[in-house]
Amino acid sequence: MEKQRKQVHSKEVEVAARSLLEERGVSIQAIAEIVYEMQGGYNEYLTVEDCAISVERVLQKREIQHAILVGVELDKLAEKRELSQPLQDIVEFDEGLFGIDETLALGAVFGYGSIAVTTYGHLDKEKIGIIKQLDTKHAEGVHTFLDDIIASIAANASSRLAHRLRDKEEAEMV
Amino acid sequence: MEKQRKQVHSKEVEVAARSLLEERGVSIQAIAEIVYEMQGGYNEYLTVEDCAISVERVLQKREIQHAILVGVELDKLAEKRELSQPLQDIVEFDEGLFGIDETLALGAVFGYGSIAVTTYGHLDKEKIGIIKQLDTKHAEGVHTFLDDIIASIAANASSRLAHRLRDKEEAEMV
Amino acid sequence: MEKQRKQVHSKEVEVAARSLLEERGVSIQAIAEIVYEMQGGYNEYLTVEDCAISVERVLQKREIQHAILVGVELDKLAEKRELSQPLQDIVEFDEGLFGIDETLALGAVFGYGSIAVTTYGHLDKEKIGIIKQLDTKHAEGVHTFLDDIIASIAANASSRLAHRLRDKEEAEMV
Amino acid sequence: MEKQRKQVHSKEVEVAARSLLEERGVSIQAIAEIVYEMQGGYNEYLTVEDCAISVERVLQKREIQHAILVGVELDKLAEKRELSQPLQDIVEFDEGLFGIDETLALGAVFGYGSIAVTTYGHLDKEKIGIIKQLDTKHAEGVHTFLDDIIASIAANASSRLAHRLRDKEEAEMV
Repeated sequence: MEKQRKQVHSKEVEVAARSLLEERGVSIQAIAEIVYEMQGGYNEYLTVEDCAISVERVLQKREIQHAILVGVELDKLAEKRELSQPLQDIVEFDEGLFGIDETLALGAVFGYGSIAVTTYGHLDKEKIGIIKQLDTKHAEGVHTFLDDIIASIAANASSRLAHRLRDKEEAEMV
Repeated sequence: MEKQRKQVHSKEVEVAARSLLEERGVSIQAIAEIVYEMQGGYNEYLTVEDCAISVERVLQKREIQHAILVGVELDKLAEKRELSQPLQDIVEFDEGLFGIDETLALGAVFGYGSIAVTTYGHLDKEKIGIIKQLDTKHAEGVHTFLDDIIASIAANASSRLAHRLRDKEEAEMV
Repeated sequence: MEKQRKQVHSKEVEVAARSLLEERGVSIQAIAEIVYEMQGGYNEYLTVEDCAISVERVLQKREIQHAILVGVELDKLAEKRELSQPLQDIVEFDEGLFGIDETLALGAVFGYGSIAVTTYGHLDKEKIGIIKQLDTKHAEGVHTFLDDIIASIAANASSRLAHRLRDKEEAEMV
Repeated sequence: MEKQRKQVHSKEVEVAARSLLEERGVSIQAIAEIVYEMQGGYNEYLTVEDCAISVERVLQKREIQHAILVGVELDKLAEKRELSQPLQDIVEFDEGLFGIDETLALGAVFGYGSIAVTTYGHLDKEKIGIIKQLDTKHAEGVHTFLDDIIASIAANASSRLAHRLRDKEEAEMV
């Protein structure tokens, strides 16, 4: 018996990814504030709204949506203690040398170039804004994957703004 | 209430990763045969046993063990239809533009350098040996993540052999 | 004395990158043919012209242009025997375990997702079309970096087509 | 006429890489101090000497040595104004959106896992110790590639220590 191929429509994936972020308490605004903190220094005219628009565009990318779907699924399964051992303990207690959360986030970050990669690394260490909140209010849920994914979305939106700023400067240079 | 930190011992992780491979029908020997096919041409004295030893060494790496734990967990959950939608359909039907399986495998492959990355890319396209079997006997299980992970183990073991061969040549050159 | 900051205009970078490809004997058409060979099987309506348009779009990316600038510079310096030792010999003789050429190409490939990475790995092993020509007519020049860069351009253009094909199918599905 | 294959001995590559670091004013000690600042907080018994030993081990890796050879060569050529335009200006003025320096450094960092990648990203933003010195005493030389390479060596040595600390803890746990 052959398995039937079934295509999942991109729109469905995007809607699911967005509602997962909302369900886990992560607003576009909260991510935009991280982006503003990262990029504000390079562009005095930048507003949090610009940053929110950049976050929106990043969320339209398939690779980001897929990372959200997989990462939040694993977080939620760990929360319900439904993962097999020892994976359950590794994810639940955010085991220090476990790197799959970062690998997943890095995979989503490469698409926006080396500025995105270094910004991601920085956010992963510094944990500002909503990333810090998720990392500390630990007792109320597992966010082992989610904090890295948000860092990757914010890093991508930051890199996108840096490249656009340059394009704009050059357009005006002519 | 604060969550208690719990460390999972490396030995436990390694044992779990190895028994997952076995459970999913993947022997060291089957991976070694892929390695032999990739490296045999560069070294006439290479045996399948050498390749098996190289595979064993790769399986001692934390990053590989973690990738096996996460990837096989997701495959098994998809098999039992226990993932949320639309992730369930994406993993079950091995959706063409889903890249998280490759991202996970690539993360495990970077540790062995650029030879490992290109060998992985090649195996991902060519699908030889056990990788092909898993890819085709689809009706009997979900192996969306597993085939990429095996390609990554084989690629790492190949790269390791290439570097060791060179070290040996240089030692004899003296 | 402080150094003055000088911005290089994107347009200038693009023109330079394109003329370097031409100077080294690599036409858009030759890269498009590789893309066609990689993607033709997935889409019966695909033409070599579609592939050429995709290559053109990839060449507009800053990361690709920079990779061309650096890679061809190193190839040309090696050709003129102007690199320091032992780098001169490593690049001139395309030393097997030297991975910087692949690292540079991989950096340019991540931007197009995991399909691009695996396609790159495949092209790096199989060396079809112009990539093979550059690799074999060795005696007439050094192309240690160039062949990997072309593989990365072709891989990116292939991945771009795969994603676009899917977008088109979905638009028609409605 | 066929080109003769010539192998460059690893020892020669290592010696060259180490003397380039020295020539550019970068001591093992200076890199060890960055590592100590990154890892001291996780391990109260860590000494700068331990960090120096870890740096030494990292410098034995082919991928790092090759990155040093290529990166410093490009820095020195830019210093002597011997690169072609517009690459000369891009490297000399450390053009903000040029990412090849980071790509090269990232390629060398993947080998030490995701801790190394995020530590690298952090160092690239924070620029502590010798990295900051190279970045600011700009007027006296071009270090566009070198500062990223040092960040990558320090990140690798840090990741190596984190993994070893864990191995030691586990050995004592028995």
